[in-house]
Amino acid sequence: MGDPAGIGPEIVAKAWRDRAFQALPPFFAVGDPRAVAAVWDGPIMPIGNPDETRSVFDTALPVLVVADAEAIVPGQPDDAGARCALDSLELATGLARSGAAGALVTGPVSKAQLYRIGFTHPGQTEFVAERCGIAPENTVMMLAGPTLRVVPVTTHIALAEVPQAISTELIVAKARVTARSLARNFAIESPRLAFAGLNPHAGESGALGREEIDVLEPAIRQLQDEGIDAVGPFAADTMFHARARAGYDAAICLYHDQALVPLKTLHFDEGVNMTLGLPIVRTSPDHGTAFGIAGHDQAEPGAMIAAIRMAGQAAEKRALAEA
Amino acid sequence: MGDPAGIGPEIVAKAWRDRAFQALPPFFAVGDPRAVAAVWDGPIMPIGNPDETRSVFDTALPVLVVADAEAIVPGQPDDAGARCALDSLELATGLARSGAAGALVTGPVSKAQLYRIGFTHPGQTEFVAERCGIAPENTVMMLAGPTLRVVPVTTHIALAEVPQAISTELIVAKARVTARSLARNFAIESPRLAFAGLNPHAGESGALGREEIDVLEPAIRQLQDEGIDAVGPFAADTMFHARARAGYDAAICLYHDQALVPLKTLHFDEGVNMTLGLPIVRTSPDHGTAFGIAGHDQAEPGAMIAAIRMAGQAAEKRALAEA
Repeated sequence: MGDPAGIGPEIVAKAWRDRAFQALPPFFAVGDPRAVAAVWDGPIMPIGNPDETRSVFDTALPVLVVADAEAIVPGQPDDAGARCALDSLELATGLARSGAAGALVTGPVSKAQLYRIGFTHPGQTEFVAERCGIAPENTVMMLAGPTLRVVPVTTHIALAEVPQAISTELIVAKARVTARSLARNFAIESPRLAFAGLNPHAGESGALGREEIDVLEPAIRQLQDEGIDAVGPFAADTMFHARARAGYDAAICLYHDQALVPLKTLHFDEGVNMTLGLPIVRTSPDHGTAFGIAGHDQAEPGAMIAAIRMAGQAAEKRALAEA
Repeated sequence: MGDPAGIGPEIVAKAWRDRAFQALPPFFAVGDPRAVAAVWDGPIMPIGNPDETRSVFDTALPVLVVADAEAIVPGQPDDAGARCALDSLELATGLARSGAAGALVTGPVSKAQLYRIGFTHPGQTEFVAERCGIAPENTVMMLAGPTLRVVPVTTHIALAEVPQAISTELIVAKARVTARSLARNFAIESPRLAFAGLNPHAGESGALGREEIDVLEPAIRQLQDEGIDAVGPFAADTMFHARARAGYDAAICLYHDQALVPLKTLHFDEGVNMTLGLPIVRTSPDHGTAFGIAGHDQAEPGAMIAAIRMAGQAAEKRALAEA
């Protein structure tokens, strides 16, 4: 559910409300049922075991209880709520890891709140990776909407640091994980990866920057040699219109905004963050806690619904592949 | 018409063909009528004077003749064609400057071809600016589609050079020209300018880069002090979805792809380049010569049509304001 004072409880409840129309697979929330009751007057059923989900799901939102130590006031985060969010994340990760749950969908948390209670990871993703025994640098963040999947090779660093941060090895590593995960999670047999150039017009043969020639092209050649369908580098501004998007399964981008600008321009209310390279399926709606609107029945569940749907489909593809 | 061997002649002719449906103002082409005849079998009428346009326009595409010294083969550029393109540009600029034409629309040229014949300007824009007595650095490139206008503060430089290239003075200067031109060309009384941050999440209060604090915020404050409706800096990835776009008249972006990625993602086939800060109205379709498809009747005239329409509307707004 994420932070109990954020919009997480509300969008989980609204996703359950829309479960039939949205054809969502059975799911259960992990967190404090009071956080849902504070913002929603639909049916809620506390459960003590994930196995109860199927019998409950048709008539109420199943909530595996992790109690918040304090009263929950929507829009007013506190330390007890942050602890509740972290305990919920830990429990949900463990259930996905053990197979008791088919996939993990994480609701929005406040990093500032988590840091206050001693959380030392940069974000939920790194925590989940560690609990799965995977080094965070070996995971890949993919953002996905209905018509576009993007992978930023670098994420939360200043733009000035990007040219130094990208290397042939890093690009190859991220692309390998992406190709493997698209096959595994989406059953795309031979995923087509398109690479964005760093510079305007992809550098114009070196006239506007040499990173394409020195860093990106060797990475693409190496991936091709490994049998991965890698193409580019392309001028970033010509890669994201509808006809161009039809030509690839994921766009490999070099920095945060190069990936996130097209994704959110096209799919602002339905962007899903999927962590690739984990032994479990993990998705997340691509937005924050929105404390400012929590408790006002204004939160749109679109991204949470998309995250649950994508997690369910990926879990199904994995199960089929392993069967 | 741009390069006679490119798609310029074809898209000008197709724009004329669609003139009624597209509600285009009367226009005349400048270039070699043979370039049009080679790719189009509609009516063409050579003219010797722009004044003939109104009487010709209903029944044929008026072409003010600038002859190419060689035979014209679509898709096969040569030096004589580059000279024809340059002579046409020079003549059309002069006609707009003198008031014989209400606005200038430039077709696509090949810079490589122009450099071969001794052209020393970086592009058509700088040539036009010089002929108008304006220093190119005092002009502003704006890209516009039906739902978005963007201004890149820096354009054709390597991404690594962007952080050094942006300064408070440069941003203020570009924004001033933009605000003035939106009022003048689009009759927007108090244009709303939204500024994109350079770094992910607009720097997160300095944690992901300081350019927002050190460079961008002082620029925005200065513009506000001058009475310009300037807001930001915003995280670039949240600025370009439909609801966000409704909040401003132009997005001021810091580098080429930050502006061009959202514009072309949304409006790939109808992007118009307008040069702001000139004494004349100048627009251009935002695409190249496309030599590869020239002569195959495959060129889409959408961007040329949009460029002609925007030029006509801007000329009208200016005339009304000056009347």
